[in-house]
Amino acid sequence: MGALGRIHNFGGGPAVLPLEVVTEVAESLPNMNGSGVGVMEVSHRSSVFQEVIDSAMDRMRRILAIPEDYEILFLQGGATTQFYMTALNLMSQNGMADFLVTGIWAKKALAEANRIGDGNAVWDGSDNDFKTVPNDGDYSIREDAAYLHYTSNNTLFGTQFHHLPDSGGKPRVVDASSDICGAPLDVSEHDLIYAGAQKNLGPSGVTVVILSPWAASRRKEGLPTMMDYHIHLSKRSMLNTPNTYGIFVLDRMLSWVERNGGLEGAIQRNKVKSEMLYSVLDGSEFWSPHAEEGSRSMMNVTWNLAEESLEPTFLAEATENEMGGLKGHRYIGGIRASLYNGCPVESVEALASFMTGFESRHG
Amino acid sequence: MGALGRIHNFGGGPAVLPLEVVTEVAESLPNMNGSGVGVMEVSHRSSVFQEVIDSAMDRMRRILAIPEDYEILFLQGGATTQFYMTALNLMSQNGMADFLVTGIWAKKALAEANRIGDGNAVWDGSDNDFKTVPNDGDYSIREDAAYLHYTSNNTLFGTQFHHLPDSGGKPRVVDASSDICGAPLDVSEHDLIYAGAQKNLGPSGVTVVILSPWAASRRKEGLPTMMDYHIHLSKRSMLNTPNTYGIFVLDRMLSWVERNGGLEGAIQRNKVKSEMLYSVLDGSEFWSPHAEEGSRSMMNVTWNLAEESLEPTFLAEATENEMGGLKGHRYIGGIRASLYNGCPVESVEALASFMTGFESRHG
Repeated sequence: MGALGRIHNFGGGPAVLPLEVVTEVAESLPNMNGSGVGVMEVSHRSSVFQEVIDSAMDRMRRILAIPEDYEILFLQGGATTQFYMTALNLMSQNGMADFLVTGIWAKKALAEANRIGDGNAVWDGSDNDFKTVPNDGDYSIREDAAYLHYTSNNTLFGTQFHHLPDSGGKPRVVDASSDICGAPLDVSEHDLIYAGAQKNLGPSGVTVVILSPWAASRRKEGLPTMMDYHIHLSKRSMLNTPNTYGIFVLDRMLSWVERNGGLEGAIQRNKVKSEMLYSVLDGSEFWSPHAEEGSRSMMNVTWNLAEESLEPTFLAEATENEMGGLKGHRYIGGIRASLYNGCPVESVEALASFMTGFESRHG
Repeated sequence: MGALGRIHNFGGGPAVLPLEVVTEVAESLPNMNGSGVGVMEVSHRSSVFQEVIDSAMDRMRRILAIPEDYEILFLQGGATTQFYMTALNLMSQNGMADFLVTGIWAKKALAEANRIGDGNAVWDGSDNDFKTVPNDGDYSIREDAAYLHYTSNNTLFGTQFHHLPDSGGKPRVVDASSDICGAPLDVSEHDLIYAGAQKNLGPSGVTVVILSPWAASRRKEGLPTMMDYHIHLSKRSMLNTPNTYGIFVLDRMLSWVERNGGLEGAIQRNKVKSEMLYSVLDGSEFWSPHAEEGSRSMMNVTWNLAEESLEPTFLAEATENEMGGLKGHRYIGGIRASLYNGCPVESVEALASFMTGFESRHG
């Protein structure tokens, strides 16, 4: 059992946070930054909170090297809200947008875009059980597409883009929910980036949206107020009461990332963690990893046992060994280990060692 | 200075919570209910979290005596999202809905409804600086209106309905953001109730929506997924990752309400607190309360000083005396004390005593 009785948590999100961050937040709950007011109880219109949100935006800008003329929003509603909102704001009525369908979330994003205009899957990995992401030659973008939408990391299937996908010169829109600030991301090559915070950046209930000048200037009249990027930008993410607590934790988590080597440090740790598991999985026929090499994710490692009937035993023994969140998403089953920014290397070492032992007992 | 250096917090929301609740949450942050996983880090698909959300819904049902055939949702996006969502789901395309415009929030709700159909202010208090809410004879509902929308408590102006407004036999939709679980509410007389949690029930980022069988059965095809009550209901508030932390705090706050006399206890405390301040305000010409008798709010007490130039001094001296959040909303200025469920009677006693002293020094 770890510190304070904490288990090794490999859940897909909301995900484990560094204990250092959790402790700092707990200490600020009754009285934040000496203000006399607790984190949950501070007015979003106060200077105390303005400092927090400004700090979180500055850190995000530094960590991701966000160009100065790009804008940042902290919204609510998760990526699922962004599936619709991106299309509503960026597509012309009855216009076109192209999608790389590398998993369930991409499919859902496409479905919402089709409420606005003509969304099209220029590539769809479903015939191959979503075991890979596409290469650049595998699809072509329609001439009239307003943008290309893709999902940088696919949590369910454990695949991830390790290159910037060709967009045929069109703007790129990316759902980076599961690898933002944990994998390489060239912001200047994208026009809109969105991500729920609950995997790499903090608790659920905060969505980060990064907009290029092009995305920020797309303006349609008459959109529902809460669905209009332009209005949120003009109100600096405080059109209405934001998730103040969530933004505070986001800032603390980003500070932790900065203290621990920034984006490069996070990438290195995530590489080390995932390679540790892939090395076990590739070591014998006992394991059957899902994603194909070249498309394998650093954030979510997914696999089956060659003998699938052993999977419940694997999960039960993992639980006995204080490891949780390993059950694969109900959509594909099997096993999944999520290795987001907050997941300590020690947890992955414990898992790799448990796997080796499990194989020798049951293999 | 109070416990842990906490000041008396009269902010309009996010608002003060009972220290008992804050402490309990802080203790659960690294390890929730002995699960080995912290509150922010628990999967929304786990049985541990399912127990939390079920408990919060059960408590809400008990506290408000919600009829069995009514449904409850915990969503994101605040009341501002509901301004649009209620109209989108409940109004027919180009249909009608009537509004009692008792303040800024009601006006905003009307504006969003007008994106869907024909929203109409059957009563508008703006000519009288929103000093009252209407009486039943003051307006009439259109025969073809789908529902009447009203705001039970008006935070900016400090007014509140103390009767169930006549709706001409139509369904009632109420924005109860600022008095839910703190003032009388006959749920069975309403068809849709919505409320941001950040005033009486917990942190920002959680919205409670209560739907009658009529509201739950209004179904339009093709709504954006996140805007469709029907889909949220079918997914039991977990269409996507909800604000898990916020729902945990909501449950803890509702438990506190139950331990402290339930709804009746909360109402009694809010009455005592507000009467304490109104009694000072009515005691001399030094003060100029904003709301008219009969419409005065138990949740937000708003006033000016007869000598308005003294207001900055009042606020500065209040700050010196460890009292915060008293500056009136930028829309109307003056002074406002918010006395939501989490505001202790002791804080209001301190404020009343400070006011009496201020008057004797400056009157």
